[in-house]
Amino acid sequence: MARKAVKRKSPVIARRIARCRRRMKKHRISAYLVTSRMDHFYLTGFTGEDSAVLLTPGDVHVISDGRFEESINQECPWATRWLRRGQLPDEIAKVCKELKLRSLAVQPDHTTLADHKALKKRIKRTRLTEAPSILSDMRCLKDDTDLVMIKKAIRIAQEAFVETREKIRVGQTEREIAALLEYEMAKRGATGPSFPTICAVGANAALPHAVPGRRKVKKGCAILFDWGAAVDFYCSDLTRMVFVGSIPKPLGEVYEVVLEAQERAIADIRPGRRMCDVDAIARDFIGEAGYGKNFGHGLGHGLGLNVHEPPSLSWRSKDKLKAGMVVTVEPGIYLPGVGGVRIEDDVLVTQKGCRVLTRLGKTLEDAVI
Amino acid sequence: MARKAVKRKSPVIARRIARCRRRMKKHRISAYLVTSRMDHFYLTGFTGEDSAVLLTPGDVHVISDGRFEESINQECPWATRWLRRGQLPDEIAKVCKELKLRSLAVQPDHTTLADHKALKKRIKRTRLTEAPSILSDMRCLKDDTDLVMIKKAIRIAQEAFVETREKIRVGQTEREIAALLEYEMAKRGATGPSFPTICAVGANAALPHAVPGRRKVKKGCAILFDWGAAVDFYCSDLTRMVFVGSIPKPLGEVYEVVLEAQERAIADIRPGRRMCDVDAIARDFIGEAGYGKNFGHGLGHGLGLNVHEPPSLSWRSKDKLKAGMVVTVEPGIYLPGVGGVRIEDDVLVTQKGCRVLTRLGKTLEDAVI
Repeated sequence: MARKAVKRKSPVIARRIARCRRRMKKHRISAYLVTSRMDHFYLTGFTGEDSAVLLTPGDVHVISDGRFEESINQECPWATRWLRRGQLPDEIAKVCKELKLRSLAVQPDHTTLADHKALKKRIKRTRLTEAPSILSDMRCLKDDTDLVMIKKAIRIAQEAFVETREKIRVGQTEREIAALLEYEMAKRGATGPSFPTICAVGANAALPHAVPGRRKVKKGCAILFDWGAAVDFYCSDLTRMVFVGSIPKPLGEVYEVVLEAQERAIADIRPGRRMCDVDAIARDFIGEAGYGKNFGHGLGHGLGLNVHEPPSLSWRSKDKLKAGMVVTVEPGIYLPGVGGVRIEDDVLVTQKGCRVLTRLGKTLEDAVI
Repeated sequence: MARKAVKRKSPVIARRIARCRRRMKKHRISAYLVTSRMDHFYLTGFTGEDSAVLLTPGDVHVISDGRFEESINQECPWATRWLRRGQLPDEIAKVCKELKLRSLAVQPDHTTLADHKALKKRIKRTRLTEAPSILSDMRCLKDDTDLVMIKKAIRIAQEAFVETREKIRVGQTEREIAALLEYEMAKRGATGPSFPTICAVGANAALPHAVPGRRKVKKGCAILFDWGAAVDFYCSDLTRMVFVGSIPKPLGEVYEVVLEAQERAIADIRPGRRMCDVDAIARDFIGEAGYGKNFGHGLGHGLGLNVHEPPSLSWRSKDKLKAGMVVTVEPGIYLPGVGGVRIEDDVLVTQKGCRVLTRLGKTLEDAVI
């Protein structure tokens, strides 16, 4: 979409930059090199690839190339631009030299060993340091703009699913249905799916990350849908089951276990709870039902500009939930050779508890078409 | 798509592993940690995410987690599997310890500073080294399997475009048309677009990486399509112009310049030519026509499991073309506020010259609907 050129920063961008600068000051960082695309989009609105944003106390520098000159004009005309002709590390070194930077903090999560080495070799008088996860921490706690966009991505994903569900017929392949769901999302304004849509029929649903193929919908089969929309980079992520006509034997019981596990976990979400404790609520319930070995992944993950982002709602994390986080809650039970059931919603942690942002019915009856 | 379980490696995978081991030996690498997903897919067929493959002279180890257990069963049951419960660096450290590795070569292009630090902290008796670009170099030179898949990705992209082109009507939005093109690709067996489809109407085409939005097709407008299909991760990448009814004034001349520049560059492609020299053929021609400042990006890039991969067909590279490489050739002229023209084909470097793999008409007449 063509964006109108604005000469001044929008209030949300100005706020994010100010907040980032406060954190830089706290960590004694005078120049912060942002190489993660989603991080610099969040910070400046700039969507260019193979680019970097350099934040200093007094300025915002965009280091990019000719392909993105027009994008800069439209997205962040207020930034100082550096359009490279050579490699990115060369241009960054040039900026360091011209600005006489004494130190430069890079993002250790978004800098490869190769890029770091290339930068080190070219930079003479600037000391390279590693920044703490300033932007990742900021992005964990959603602001109003984040929430508006996530809700939009959810609305589009839901409407497209309702439409697609109506059109499911015996004989269609997984791939056809996945294509249709993505088309319905795009028609409603999605810039794309937030990840490759999963549409898994029968035993294929036993793979948590199944790839849609030539399997066909049959009467009495189960279909697992895991999908989401991306809207200007913001993501939604849902999972629902569809049973065609009837519910295959073991999956009805399995469905009820997964649903109960999910609802118990959601009821437990509030600020201050540890990730591993919420995960345990669902995991223990599934374990007691006898399916402990069939739930091999974490309970959920953060959601925003990336479809997978911190926090990790899993047994691996002792971090605590905070108000403003948006996480998926998606327990599953997988029976190799038979099939799988997963149910996933997107949940906002509020001051007092949580609010489920997704609104698609999920009783066993809802799942039968 | 569910893959049939095979207990032995397929011939192509066995060949790639053998070739990789020969190169490891040459570089005195006894244990090679492959963390790039496309690299380990190329090497083993394993599609899992957040995983790693460890290649040693005598074994292939897949280090993954429960989500991908079934994928391992289907894609590489012959590999030794390690399913982590904790973080990936913890599991890699465990493997190093159990195998008593004295050194481990990581991929500097696919290892972040953060992951490297985490690994270093956990590994006691194994020395970490940086591997040269073994797999990237291997993937540069396409084998028969690569070519079959790239051609399939091209065929699907082309057929879908022909179908979509027929359905373009005045009043449709960029987004609608892009969605339709992606749907037509998916219906034909694409696992998805190889990158977000660009459908840019009028002045929006002045952005080389335009995002489809609400601009509508009008009589007499120009539309730039840049799209590709991904088929089991293999990519195609094409660009074509469509003129609706008539050709807007400056673009007819611009089109002929871009086309001539592209054809001259393609005619120059053969083993032994330097990337920068082929780039210069197109760039000088465009420069002489007076549009030098309006062609800000490189001439092309390698294409395979990634839609952008080595080599870089640009003024920045003095590397030489080799038989077996597949590159895009995509000069463009961008007129801010007016529009842009780009024409892109996928080209295989052969022993004696090259073969254009894409087959869509590209005369000015072909472009008018």
